[in-house]
Amino acid sequence: MMDKLPSDQPPGTVPKLGEIGLTNFAPYLMNRIMGRYNASLRDEMAGLGLTTPKMRALAVLSVIEGPLIRELAVFSVVEQSTLSRALDQLAIEGLIRREADAADSRATRVYITEAGRASFETLWPHMSEAHSRMFRGVSADERRAFVGTLQKMLSNIRKHEI
Amino acid sequence: MMDKLPSDQPPGTVPKLGEIGLTNFAPYLMNRIMGRYNASLRDEMAGLGLTTPKMRALAVLSVIEGPLIRELAVFSVVEQSTLSRALDQLAIEGLIRREADAADSRATRVYITEAGRASFETLWPHMSEAHSRMFRGVSADERRAFVGTLQKMLSNIRKHEI
Repeated sequence: MMDKLPSDQPPGTVPKLGEIGLTNFAPYLMNRIMGRYNASLRDEMAGLGLTTPKMRALAVLSVIEGPLIRELAVFSVVEQSTLSRALDQLAIEGLIRREADAADSRATRVYITEAGRASFETLWPHMSEAHSRMFRGVSADERRAFVGTLQKMLSNIRKHEI
Repeated sequence: MMDKLPSDQPPGTVPKLGEIGLTNFAPYLMNRIMGRYNASLRDEMAGLGLTTPKMRALAVLSVIEGPLIRELAVFSVVEQSTLSRALDQLAIEGLIRREADAADSRATRVYITEAGRASFETLWPHMSEAHSRMFRGVSADERRAFVGTLQKMLSNIRKHEI
C-alpha cells in the first residue's frame, strides 16, 4: 500500500498521483480528516450558539495571553475579516475584550474574560473528545512521533514567524 | 515540549488545552498546515483559472474511474452543492462528462475527459511541489510512519465507507 512516495523516486522525476495513490497522499488524508473533525465540531458548537471562528478564537485566547488581532488570525486559522466579525460578537457576549496595544495605539490586543474562559470550559470536553476519537488505537509513542512530524511540517510551510 | 498528551493522563481526567499546549495539539497543527497548503495552491490555481473544488474534483477523477457524484464529494472534501456547480463549469470546459449510472438511472457518474487529464497534468507539478515543500527534512521512513498514522485516523473518524 505504501510502496511509492515521492522521495523514493530518482531525482528529477515527479511521480504521478495515480502512482502514489490517493490514500497514500498526505494532503488528501489531512484534508479528509480535518474536514470531518471540523464538521463534527461545527455541528456540536452550533447547538451551543458558537461558530467555528468564535470557537477557535476562544480556544487560542484560553492559552495565549493578549495576542494582537493579526496574531490571533494566524493562530486560529481564520481570515482577519471573518475573525473581526467573530470578535464583535464575542465582545457583545462579554466573552472577550479588546484593548489598544500599550506600545502602538493603532494595534489591538484581544483578551479572554472570565466568562469567556467559563464558556471555553464547556467547549473543551467536546474538542478533547473529538481529538481522542481521532487517535483511537494509536499508541502514545506513535502519537508523539506524529505530532513531531507535524511540527516540522508547520515550520516548513508557515509564512508567519509564529 | 511534548510532555503531556491526553493518553498520559490518569483515566477519567481530561487534560486542559493549556496543559497540552497549542503546538502539541494535533488538530491545531493540522488546521494550520492545511490552511497554508490549501491557500498556497488556491493562489497558484487562480492563475490557471481553477478553483479549489474544480482542482480537487480533477485530482480525484484522475485516479478514480467514474465515481458517483456523492462519492466524488466525499473524496474531494467538497460539499455536494458546491461540487455540482464546479462540475457544471468543468463540463462546459470539456474537462469532465457526466453519465447516468447503468444500474440506477437516477444516479450520476462523473468521468474525466482527455482534455481534463491534460489539464490535471499541468496542475499536478504544483501540487507535488507544495507536497515536497511540506515534507522538507522529513525522511522517507518518518513520512511513511506519518502517512500510516493518518490512515488510522481517517478510518477512526470517517462517516462514509470509502
